[in-house]
Amino acid sequence: MNFIKTPVKGMCDMLPEDMRLRQRILSMIRESYSRYGFMEIETPAMEHIENLLSDQGGENEKLIFKVMKRGASFASALEKEQYDALADSGMRYDLTVPLARYYAANSERLPSPFKALQIGNVWRADNPQKGRFRQFTQCDIDILGDESNLAEIELIGATSDMLLKIFQGTEVSGLTVHINDRRILRAACLQAGFKEEDIKSVLISLDKYDKIGAEGVRKELTENGFSGECADRYLKLYDTPETDCESFCSGIDKEYLKPEDTESLNTVIESVKAMADQRMSIVFDPSLVRGMGYYTGTIFEITLNGYNFSIAGGGRYDEMIGRFSGNRVCACGFSIGFERIITILKDMLKDSEKLPEGSLAVLVHKNVPQKQKIQVFSEAMKLRSEGRTVSVLPMKKNLNAQFKRLEEEGYTEFKKVYPED
Amino acid sequence: MNFIKTPVKGMCDMLPEDMRLRQRILSMIRESYSRYGFMEIETPAMEHIENLLSDQGGENEKLIFKVMKRGASFASALEKEQYDALADSGMRYDLTVPLARYYAANSERLPSPFKALQIGNVWRADNPQKGRFRQFTQCDIDILGDESNLAEIELIGATSDMLLKIFQGTEVSGLTVHINDRRILRAACLQAGFKEEDIKSVLISLDKYDKIGAEGVRKELTENGFSGECADRYLKLYDTPETDCESFCSGIDKEYLKPEDTESLNTVIESVKAMADQRMSIVFDPSLVRGMGYYTGTIFEITLNGYNFSIAGGGRYDEMIGRFSGNRVCACGFSIGFERIITILKDMLKDSEKLPEGSLAVLVHKNVPQKQKIQVFSEAMKLRSEGRTVSVLPMKKNLNAQFKRLEEEGYTEFKKVYPED
Repeated sequence: MNFIKTPVKGMCDMLPEDMRLRQRILSMIRESYSRYGFMEIETPAMEHIENLLSDQGGENEKLIFKVMKRGASFASALEKEQYDALADSGMRYDLTVPLARYYAANSERLPSPFKALQIGNVWRADNPQKGRFRQFTQCDIDILGDESNLAEIELIGATSDMLLKIFQGTEVSGLTVHINDRRILRAACLQAGFKEEDIKSVLISLDKYDKIGAEGVRKELTENGFSGECADRYLKLYDTPETDCESFCSGIDKEYLKPEDTESLNTVIESVKAMADQRMSIVFDPSLVRGMGYYTGTIFEITLNGYNFSIAGGGRYDEMIGRFSGNRVCACGFSIGFERIITILKDMLKDSEKLPEGSLAVLVHKNVPQKQKIQVFSEAMKLRSEGRTVSVLPMKKNLNAQFKRLEEEGYTEFKKVYPED
Repeated sequence: MNFIKTPVKGMCDMLPEDMRLRQRILSMIRESYSRYGFMEIETPAMEHIENLLSDQGGENEKLIFKVMKRGASFASALEKEQYDALADSGMRYDLTVPLARYYAANSERLPSPFKALQIGNVWRADNPQKGRFRQFTQCDIDILGDESNLAEIELIGATSDMLLKIFQGTEVSGLTVHINDRRILRAACLQAGFKEEDIKSVLISLDKYDKIGAEGVRKELTENGFSGECADRYLKLYDTPETDCESFCSGIDKEYLKPEDTESLNTVIESVKAMADQRMSIVFDPSLVRGMGYYTGTIFEITLNGYNFSIAGGGRYDEMIGRFSGNRVCACGFSIGFERIITILKDMLKDSEKLPEGSLAVLVHKNVPQKQKIQVFSEAMKLRSEGRTVSVLPMKKNLNAQFKRLEEEGYTEFKKVYPED
């Protein structure tokens, strides 16, 4: 038989110790977000191919796993040589497109604003590489229908709080929230003399500020054909390390940036500070860009102290859901890098995902008669009803090896049952 | 834009109240099974198409959602007109085929016996109808590598215990485990004079005993060409309502049924009785057949008192995993009808999936100034750290409607924040 033992390319089998860690973290995420009033929802793993190919997904649209039509409709498409029409659905590549569809379909049965939590797998036919899988778990919170900055504060507060709980007791000492606003990014471009149509290109260069520095950004801008004067004026704005939002924006004219936008961002920052303890800080980061084209306002990321990459990112995207559903719905979301967090925790926690303290393995010899077996199970039941973990198992010939393996799994107590004479 | 609001045909969007119920039940399942030493694992949603089409899945193989090859390999298959080769994987239609592959791939890293818990979605391109979906959750426990009847007792004990916990406090007064053995079914056929090759057909008729009675079964057997004498001898064996296992088997010769097989089944029954309280009973049911062809020994189902269909079923299937992986591995499993249980609970529990007691909604007027907002979030944070659920929301113009909606969601406390003068 043509049986293949390995999982499908780029996808993972989860071992029991992996699952214990994942489930423990997922429980903490659910518990923590629910305390902020977020409500979990779920959408199917498959979406209509038309929705997935709607041009909101950017590069991800090239990575869709397409699901074939069935029966007559497949045959019909094949007959007409409509090869594009062989698939009628595909695996979701993120949780945002399904959320837009979900909200369009169900908004009348949902509160407004709607605070949604989604935890689910997504699929991307990406080139598999270390730490990048073709099936992986995403975890998003979104607030739909709240145009005020209460949404940003709730999202950032809830996510920071949750991450601090997850990393409590580990070597991670704290986290930093980096925040900026698309409108400030735009205004700074205009202030420096760039044109509206140049902004996208300029921001691609600015996005590398952390890596290549002011000189590198200047070089790239002039290489891309922008004037040295514009570049200099632009980079002068950013030559203010550890600036605060108000100082930075004071260098930008009102015609490019409304004072209330600055004030609103400042309120987000100050409110988050008021919620923070010493393990958490929030900084205005004027060179934070974030790739996704659909952001319209605030953008934010979280880094763990000691790690130079973000483990959560999000922002406001007021136009996107409307483009899908026809009705404008303002929206703001935060997505944590669940798989990245699991990888970090797995490296740090080595042995911690064991069984509960006092777990008991009862090893039953194969010749134990019925009457004694009944007794074994009756006693096991009693212990379980008291909250103990008890596994009744057949005794193996190599009892020492069996003990060793069970100890590795986390069993700390053992009972051997031999036939009574 | 060609945007489709409804989910893909036959699949469901889960509303927040649905998810609260599902997650609560899933937590109980995980907690309860882990107390019996079952370890959760997870396999990818997709499997190699070769594995799915391996003839172990019966009718389900016709219902596979096939996933198309990508890029050059798709083009190549199309060019060669190898339409069957357009798909290289498919969505899993159950959790048993993936378990067989998983065990073949990972057995060296797993304990033996291996007590596995799987909770996951499966996909079947079935005709959608009430209560039957194209994506639904399955929940299976399996013990691999235990040839003794300890496996059966653990599976039945764990599943009954878990179901009783789930239905505790509802109108369901208890449950009944129905148990039989494929070897007894076979022996009874032979005893009555049927031939080995007739057994499959005879059991298809016997499976209808509950519905059409002895007369109906007799009619069907003779219509299918079996002699009236055989049929009479056969049905005489079953003319013993509420029989016990030993009495039933005493009418069968040793050449057809080994006494140790009867004794083993009896030990399972007596051990489960010893674990049971008054809400649970176990009965030997000699006409229990169960459809799946791969069972080799014990078979069992659970019915809730007051419901005439089973909500869990399973049995021993010692030959199946080996047919997949090449190495014989004895196995025994129990699968609960998760969606059916959710449907029953949803009907019974109407209003119970609410927010925790004392959940607070803080409604903030849009003109509240920064300083006051900061105060609001600081106070909310404090309450959350004490375990309260607090949602900070923008105050709406129609405050009464907003209150009503929030009360329906389960908020019991409210705070209105207006701008201070």
